Amino acid sequence: MKLLRIGPAGAERPALLDSDGTLRDLSGVVSDIDAALLADPEGLDRIRAAAADLPELDRAGARLGPPLAAPGKIVCIGLNYHDHARETGAAIPGEPIVFMKAPDTVVGPEDTVLVPRGSVKTDWEVELAVVIGRTARYLDSADQALAHVAGYAVAHDVSEREFQIERGGQWDKGKNCETFNPLGPWLVTADEVPDPQALPLRLWVNGELKQDGSTADMIFPVAELIRYLSQFMTLYPGDVINTGTPAGVALGHPDPKPYLRAGDVVELEIEGLGRQRQELKDA
Amino acid sequence: MKLLRIGPAGAERPALLDSDGTLRDLSGVVSDIDAALLADPEGLDRIRAAAADLPELDRAGARLGPPLAAPGKIVCIGLNYHDHARETGAAIPGEPIVFMKAPDTVVGPEDTVLVPRGSVKTDWEVELAVVIGRTARYLDSADQALAHVAGYAVAHDVSEREFQIERGGQWDKGKNCETFNPLGPWLVTADEVPDPQALPLRLWVNGELKQDGSTADMIFPVAELIRYLSQFMTLYPGDVINTGTPAGVALGHPDPKPYLRAGDVVELEIEGLGRQRQELKDA
Repeated sequence: MKLLRIGPAGAERPALLDSDGTLRDLSGVVSDIDAALLADPEGLDRIRAAAADLPELDRAGARLGPPLAAPGKIVCIGLNYHDHARETGAAIPGEPIVFMKAPDTVVGPEDTVLVPRGSVKTDWEVELAVVIGRTARYLDSADQALAHVAGYAVAHDVSEREFQIERGGQWDKGKNCETFNPLGPWLVTADEVPDPQALPLRLWVNGELKQDGSTADMIFPVAELIRYLSQFMTLYPGDVINTGTPAGVALGHPDPKPYLRAGDVVELEIEGLGRQRQELKDA
Repeated sequence: MKLLRIGPAGAERPALLDSDGTLRDLSGVVSDIDAALLADPEGLDRIRAAAADLPELDRAGARLGPPLAAPGKIVCIGLNYHDHARETGAAIPGEPIVFMKAPDTVVGPEDTVLVPRGSVKTDWEVELAVVIGRTARYLDSADQALAHVAGYAVAHDVSEREFQIERGGQWDKGKNCETFNPLGPWLVTADEVPDPQALPLRLWVNGELKQDGSTADMIFPVAELIRYLSQFMTLYPGDVINTGTPAGVALGHPDPKPYLRAGDVVELEIEGLGRQRQELKDA
C-alpha cells in the first residue's frame, strides 16, 4: 500500500493511493499514519480490509505532508554507497557511520527547502528512508531484520557541508537546519518492496540529472544496518533510518562546486516510492 | 517553581514541589508538563495562580518520571568545560561542538541505567540541561537568549566511549543507547535560576566524589549556546540542550579507567536543581 498524508502542515489527513491511482480518505479508519498505527499488529490490516470501500479524495492542489506523523528519531548513515565514498575521497567505512537528524527537520515532499542564513554549501542527497514498524533491540542477525520494517519512503537528506565538516567536528551541525528532511510522497508498505537493495534512485537540480544510483551499491544493506544499529540503540516503531546517498552530490563535484541557492529546484525519486520536488528559498 | 512528573513510565502525573517541600497534584490544572504547556504564554502562570489551592500528593514510593514529557530534540554540547577539555587531552574548541541524543533515551532521575551489551567503556557525565520555552531562530545576540529558556534540570549524559570514539566516527553512536539520558528530578523554572553560570554540579560513583565543577567554568555559556545553536537549527519549546560536563569522567582518569559496570550506583546533583541516583544493570 501507498500511505500518505494530505493537508496543511500540522493538520494533515491520512490517505491511501490505490493501485489504480485513486486517492482515498483514510480518516474514517485511522486517526493518522504514525508510530501508534505502525506498532499495532492489526493496524495496516485494518486499512487493507477497508480499502475497497474508502471514499475517494480529491487532492485538488492540497499540500502533501510527510507520510509519517511525528517520527521518533531519524538515524542517518554516512558514506554508505561505494561510489559516494569514492567521490568524497573518503575510505570505505569498516562499519556504518551514524549521525542524527531531529524529527523537526521533516517536511513534506514538495515543501520549500530553506538555505540557512550564512550558508554557501547547501547540498542535496537522495536517500532511501526505512520506517521501523516493530521494536528492534540487539538483533542477533540480519536475517530477521527486515521483519522490523513497516515501509519505505524517499528522503532528501539536505546537508550544509561547511556546517557539517568545517565548523568544529560532528556532522549533526550541518544536518539539522530547518526543512532539511523532506520525506515522501508515500510510505510504501514493506510487502510492496520485496528487495530494498534493488531500487534505482535519482536526483535532478534544475532539470539536470545529478545522482543516478541504485541501492544495490550500498556498502551496508538495509537488513545489516538495522541489525547493526540495534546493538547501539533501540529502534522503535515510527523511527526512520536514512540509509545514505549515492554519488553525485555537490561536494563530489570539481570546484567551483554547484551548491544550492534560492531559486534552485531539486527533484528526486526512487522507483516505486514516488517523486519529490522542492524549490529552494532563503531562510 | 519546581515541576515534576510522578508515576509509572508513560503514565506520569504532573506535580509541583512547594517551597516548603510539599508535593502537590497538578493534574487538575494542566494535562502534562510538555512542549504545549511551555509554549503557552499563560501556561506557567496558570500553575502559579493555582498553586496555593492544589491538593497534596503523597509520593509514597512512587517513581519519579522525567520532568518533561516528550522532549522535542536533545542537542548536546561536547567539551564545554575548560577542565574537561584538558582532562581528555582535547584542544579548547573554537566554537561549540554539537551532537544529538534521541528523545527516547530520556528516563527518570532514579530509573535504572543499562550498560549496553558488549560495552566496556560506559561513562558518566553530570550536565546542566536547558529546556526551551520559546522558539529560538537566528537570534541576533546572546542578550535575548535566556528569555527563550523555560527552565533548567539535571541531566546525566551517559556515554559509551568505545562506541563514541573508536567505532567509525561521529559521537552519536555512543550517546544514544537506551536509558542514556536520566533527566530531573525537577524542571526548575527559569525565574528561580537567576544565573545559570553560577551552579555547582557534582557526581559520585559508589559514594566517591568524581565530578565537582561549576557552570562558571563553561567555555560557551548558556546564553551563547542558544544564540549559536539558533544559527544552525531552530530551537522549539520542549527542546533540551545538554550543556556539557566538567572534569572527572572515567575517560579522564589514568588507566585502568573506572568505567561503569552493573551494580555501580551513580548519584549526581546541581545546586538548586535536585539530585539523581541510578543503579547500573546489564542490558
